[in-house]
Amino acid sequence: MASRRTCSLCGKREAVYFRPYSGESLCRLCFIRSIERKVRRTISKYAMFNPDDRIALALSGGKDSLSLLHLLHKIEKNFPKAELYAITVNEGIEGYRDEAVEHAAEACRRLNVKHVVVSFRELFGYTLDEIVKASRRLENAPAPCTYCGVLRRRALNLAAGKLEATKIATAHNLDDEVQTFILNLLHGDVYKLGRLDPEAPEAEGFIPRVKPFREIPEAETAFYAYLTGVRFQSKACPYAGTALRGEVRWLLNRLEARHPGIKFTLYHSFEKLKPLVRSGVKAEIYRCERCGEPSSKPLCEVCSLLSELEKAR
Amino acid sequence: MASRRTCSLCGKREAVYFRPYSGESLCRLCFIRSIERKVRRTISKYAMFNPDDRIALALSGGKDSLSLLHLLHKIEKNFPKAELYAITVNEGIEGYRDEAVEHAAEACRRLNVKHVVVSFRELFGYTLDEIVKASRRLENAPAPCTYCGVLRRRALNLAAGKLEATKIATAHNLDDEVQTFILNLLHGDVYKLGRLDPEAPEAEGFIPRVKPFREIPEAETAFYAYLTGVRFQSKACPYAGTALRGEVRWLLNRLEARHPGIKFTLYHSFEKLKPLVRSGVKAEIYRCERCGEPSSKPLCEVCSLLSELEKAR
Repeated sequence: MASRRTCSLCGKREAVYFRPYSGESLCRLCFIRSIERKVRRTISKYAMFNPDDRIALALSGGKDSLSLLHLLHKIEKNFPKAELYAITVNEGIEGYRDEAVEHAAEACRRLNVKHVVVSFRELFGYTLDEIVKASRRLENAPAPCTYCGVLRRRALNLAAGKLEATKIATAHNLDDEVQTFILNLLHGDVYKLGRLDPEAPEAEGFIPRVKPFREIPEAETAFYAYLTGVRFQSKACPYAGTALRGEVRWLLNRLEARHPGIKFTLYHSFEKLKPLVRSGVKAEIYRCERCGEPSSKPLCEVCSLLSELEKAR
Repeated sequence: MASRRTCSLCGKREAVYFRPYSGESLCRLCFIRSIERKVRRTISKYAMFNPDDRIALALSGGKDSLSLLHLLHKIEKNFPKAELYAITVNEGIEGYRDEAVEHAAEACRRLNVKHVVVSFRELFGYTLDEIVKASRRLENAPAPCTYCGVLRRRALNLAAGKLEATKIATAHNLDDEVQTFILNLLHGDVYKLGRLDPEAPEAEGFIPRVKPFREIPEAETAFYAYLTGVRFQSKACPYAGTALRGEVRWLLNRLEARHPGIKFTLYHSFEKLKPLVRSGVKAEIYRCERCGEPSSKPLCEVCSLLSELEKAR
């Protein structure tokens, strides 16, 4: 069918992307515009930014975070009082992380965005590779992704705090959000649902986090990165295979292929659930007795993971 | 390994069932006892019955409902003031339903349980086959399972009302419960979660429903039916393939095979969520303007499905 090759929006240019859940075929320009419009709408819907925010973007060097850098830099031009910084956390993964750090640095140079690189080794004394190796001596060792997630979150908070950032922006997309919800259910962590609520008041000591891509499917952040010509890390993390998340991603993609739009339906189900869950939970915030950082337990997750590890060494 | 063949509980008899989520191997007798003990515990945990209840069991003639008949009949012997009735709904599915109705009747005769059979045709004027055929003329026709579920629920309520039953017992198992929860999320029906709560106060006009098998996995209700020698309908419903439920069942079984016990974790996640969801919802109960039955909308689901169908005929 010849009509398939024309953009459903402008009716003129050649379509390069088919969006199964809406039935639209889009040309390069209309696709890029639709992503940018959707992100602006998401930002405004959740009131993610103030005009004078100092934004710290978590820039891994993958397609999502580089696309978000590109987009926030574009949006920020209209807000002269806002500032944009990029923070890259080098976890220390041999043969994987260095390439991504280079892509991140290159993109920041090109757009003239201030860039800070922090590493697990300088902050916590070990690279992720060293941690994973040491953890093998533990009974019931946490998965590499557990260490990485907890420490990366802390690294980001510390670096953003030094920059006196008022917001941390991460490039989590629709797929990430839906996977996380399902994983919380599969782990029995229903009280974590409240924490995912972008409108939940941030606990004292934490810099508020925003996710401008939370309503953009992963397939579209990837295609956006491709169309805007960003060079990004495409290799998968060598530890990724160990996580239940990969299995949930596969199951959700299988459902989406047969029922286009089902990820959005799930996302909206969770959005309806979150404020209900939050209302039932009293979150208590402590200062960790070892490192003094804010925590939901007297000993924070970072210190409890690291102290277990020290025993194993 | 010879040890694998001995029952983990009694340490004497030969094991015939392996339970992956607990690591136990069980002999015939210990397996049957473990199911019966678990069901008694579930009944008591959710305070499902009073000693003087008049119980209407929904008896389809499949393995789950025949097993539950067997078990409730056994338990009821200790409660002389309680009464047990079985209700079979004949939906009118050519080449499928008649066999199941016979199994149901035979089991009731054998146990001396009073048995009532009602049919879609006598209650609503059409068999399910006729409804499905007529519905093909509708735009966006509801799935056969939608008609069947809504009408069967009503048929059961009407028949149980005539018997002046104080409880309706259904044989939904752990898999059914978990699938239903996931389906509600996939359909965006989060407010239905509150309705699944066995402790939710029943709305006026509805007979309270209890599910004594809700914590027994489907694999175990099936094996229980097999061991107790019940003859049951094993053919699958000819309409079953049309439902998203089948796909969710497949996905959950795949997860369970790789992570034994994950269905229980999901079940407990939902148990934690339900009271939270309920607290956020005000349920309004109407009397249907056409049939007078209690309903969550001014026109009940039965009448709205049937009136659409009449237009198509």
